[in-house]
Amino acid sequence: MLINGSQYSSLSYLPEEPGKTDAIRIIDQRFLPFQIKFCLLSTLKEVVYAIREMQVRGAPLIGVTAAFGLLFFLKEPVCKEKGANQRELDQLLSETAEKIISVRPTAYNTGYCVNEVLRAMQKHKSMQGKKKAGLDRALELLEEDKEICKKIGEHGLSLIESIYEKKGTVNILTHCNAGWLACVDYGTVTAPLYFARQEGLDIHVWVDETRPRNQGARLTVWELRQNGVRNTLVADNTGGHLMQKGLVDIVLVGCDRVTADGDVANKIGTYLKALAAKDNGIPFYVATPSTTIDWSIKEGLINIPIENRDASEIKYVEGWYKDSLKTVLITDREAEVFNPGFDVTPADYITGLITERGICQANRGSIKSLFPDKTSSVS
Amino acid sequence: MLINGSQYSSLSYLPEEPGKTDAIRIIDQRFLPFQIKFCLLSTLKEVVYAIREMQVRGAPLIGVTAAFGLLFFLKEPVCKEKGANQRELDQLLSETAEKIISVRPTAYNTGYCVNEVLRAMQKHKSMQGKKKAGLDRALELLEEDKEICKKIGEHGLSLIESIYEKKGTVNILTHCNAGWLACVDYGTVTAPLYFARQEGLDIHVWVDETRPRNQGARLTVWELRQNGVRNTLVADNTGGHLMQKGLVDIVLVGCDRVTADGDVANKIGTYLKALAAKDNGIPFYVATPSTTIDWSIKEGLINIPIENRDASEIKYVEGWYKDSLKTVLITDREAEVFNPGFDVTPADYITGLITERGICQANRGSIKSLFPDKTSSVS
Repeated sequence: MLINGSQYSSLSYLPEEPGKTDAIRIIDQRFLPFQIKFCLLSTLKEVVYAIREMQVRGAPLIGVTAAFGLLFFLKEPVCKEKGANQRELDQLLSETAEKIISVRPTAYNTGYCVNEVLRAMQKHKSMQGKKKAGLDRALELLEEDKEICKKIGEHGLSLIESIYEKKGTVNILTHCNAGWLACVDYGTVTAPLYFARQEGLDIHVWVDETRPRNQGARLTVWELRQNGVRNTLVADNTGGHLMQKGLVDIVLVGCDRVTADGDVANKIGTYLKALAAKDNGIPFYVATPSTTIDWSIKEGLINIPIENRDASEIKYVEGWYKDSLKTVLITDREAEVFNPGFDVTPADYITGLITERGICQANRGSIKSLFPDKTSSVS
Repeated sequence: MLINGSQYSSLSYLPEEPGKTDAIRIIDQRFLPFQIKFCLLSTLKEVVYAIREMQVRGAPLIGVTAAFGLLFFLKEPVCKEKGANQRELDQLLSETAEKIISVRPTAYNTGYCVNEVLRAMQKHKSMQGKKKAGLDRALELLEEDKEICKKIGEHGLSLIESIYEKKGTVNILTHCNAGWLACVDYGTVTAPLYFARQEGLDIHVWVDETRPRNQGARLTVWELRQNGVRNTLVADNTGGHLMQKGLVDIVLVGCDRVTADGDVANKIGTYLKALAAKDNGIPFYVATPSTTIDWSIKEGLINIPIENRDASEIKYVEGWYKDSLKTVLITDREAEVFNPGFDVTPADYITGLITERGICQANRGSIKSLFPDKTSSVS
């Protein structure tokens, strides 16, 4: 998508060159929208840092980044040492995969992507074979992510078109950032919006600021503006009022994990917007790549691990002051804090899931009808 | 209540002294919790500034402050000039009362308090008579506010006690600040909490940070800590998750205006918490002095004016940095913003209203049974 008129992806792969190992180029999203900084990651350590410190964020982008992390692990001396003993190396790769996944435990894509690369590697005995297979699979995942977002965009566009046909304008409310910055390109929630703009439909987006990290205020507002989509920033508290006043036609959010029964974990606060949508008869859709569906669990409230994040994210707010990022204290220095990163929206509150294969209801039967080839291990 | 172990009120009256006109002393709440600054207001202009810029905030405290504002207006030369012509002066007082009320249009107490002082003044012909009657009424309103909060505290305590008896501990969620800082003393939501602590009950409060102005993070956390009530700060997005997880026993919020049918306007975001409380079977109570009940209107969503506030409150966050208050930009500099200050929670979502005369349901019949002496002008 566009930054200052030029095309970028959130993640791109740079092959090995003489004197340089291979790497991925990411945007260090911690500085947006104030500064556009790119960053090269070529080691597992750099990848883990990028995920933990949220240089990259958003379940799909974390997933693809993590996939390259496991690939880059092969460069480490310990792998070369174990290279002769395939069983030991495979064991080490499995353990490392687990560690990468645990950095951001709620996002399901991390597990999916890392395990895909792991399996590809473990099919090969030689270090060379593992490297090639791992890289091929990571690159496929990268392309897959773009393709999935495009398809979600096409299916989601139909929802926007049908409101547009009735009203001549469409007001969308979104929470957090499920934009191209959260994926490799297009975004999940934003793909339908960008396609609607390309078609010339009059759309307007209400953007929740999304405390505590303000991904809405910092990322969504910026990426929509950069790509010509009209939007208005509101406090997270405002969505209910907007819906009561008839100012929202559809709620579109992304997700970090979906259960086989259609419960959805997404950024903390999503559940409150789903309640308000239901109370006001407004459709509430979740854009989800099938890679975010965890076929092994049923009940979101019980089975999805919710990441607890640092107190400093609540006590301090980061923003631009004069010519740099500063963090200001917004409460009593000694305040106690609780900071869960996600909440679970039960399937009953979700009008539908927008997947790369089409739109389905948030229940097992409807999900399975789109994905008969996926084996869910729940009964 | 206590600040660093000493007793204070949010507002106290200082009578005239030789060489000094009378004044009210307030805490400039814009600096809390970082600095404790007191401020003397002795003119209408200072009072209007204090209300507009939120040196004082919270419907009950705005009301009492505004009452003194109208009183202080009598000091102005224009009043002395018109002093000879009672009709002209009364007309001028009426117009001024309207102007004061319009500064923060959602809070109903402002109208109540200012009109009480206006009526008291208009009963007298002489300037001296007006002054004395206005002052007497303003001082009564000040004492009334304390008394009302105490009684709300006693009635609200019974709700907390009954949960405590069953569970041995009580988790309360609150939004914004309806504490002693929002009133003259005790607070509406906080009076029951302070009384519960005095009784030695084990209570714990979840405090919503309350964007955009963070009254929860800045005021509620601080005043509860100063007065020995255990509390934990959370992002506004978190309340639904807490309720889903069984971590909230009761929601207690204040209000800025209640209709004759029990709809409640309160800080933006309150409605979302009411929805979550209903969804999880958690009692949702509103602490309201009868001075906040607008007997002239029925439907909150239609009849309550909602104040739209400045975009800068959303685009910037104020906090402490090094040794002073700073505001940092948290979004694209060009972002569009919408910033309504309040939302309306329909009566259906409210378990009960805690008033100075007891607890009633949020419907006209139940409210009237506590206040048969109040004339509602709706049918």
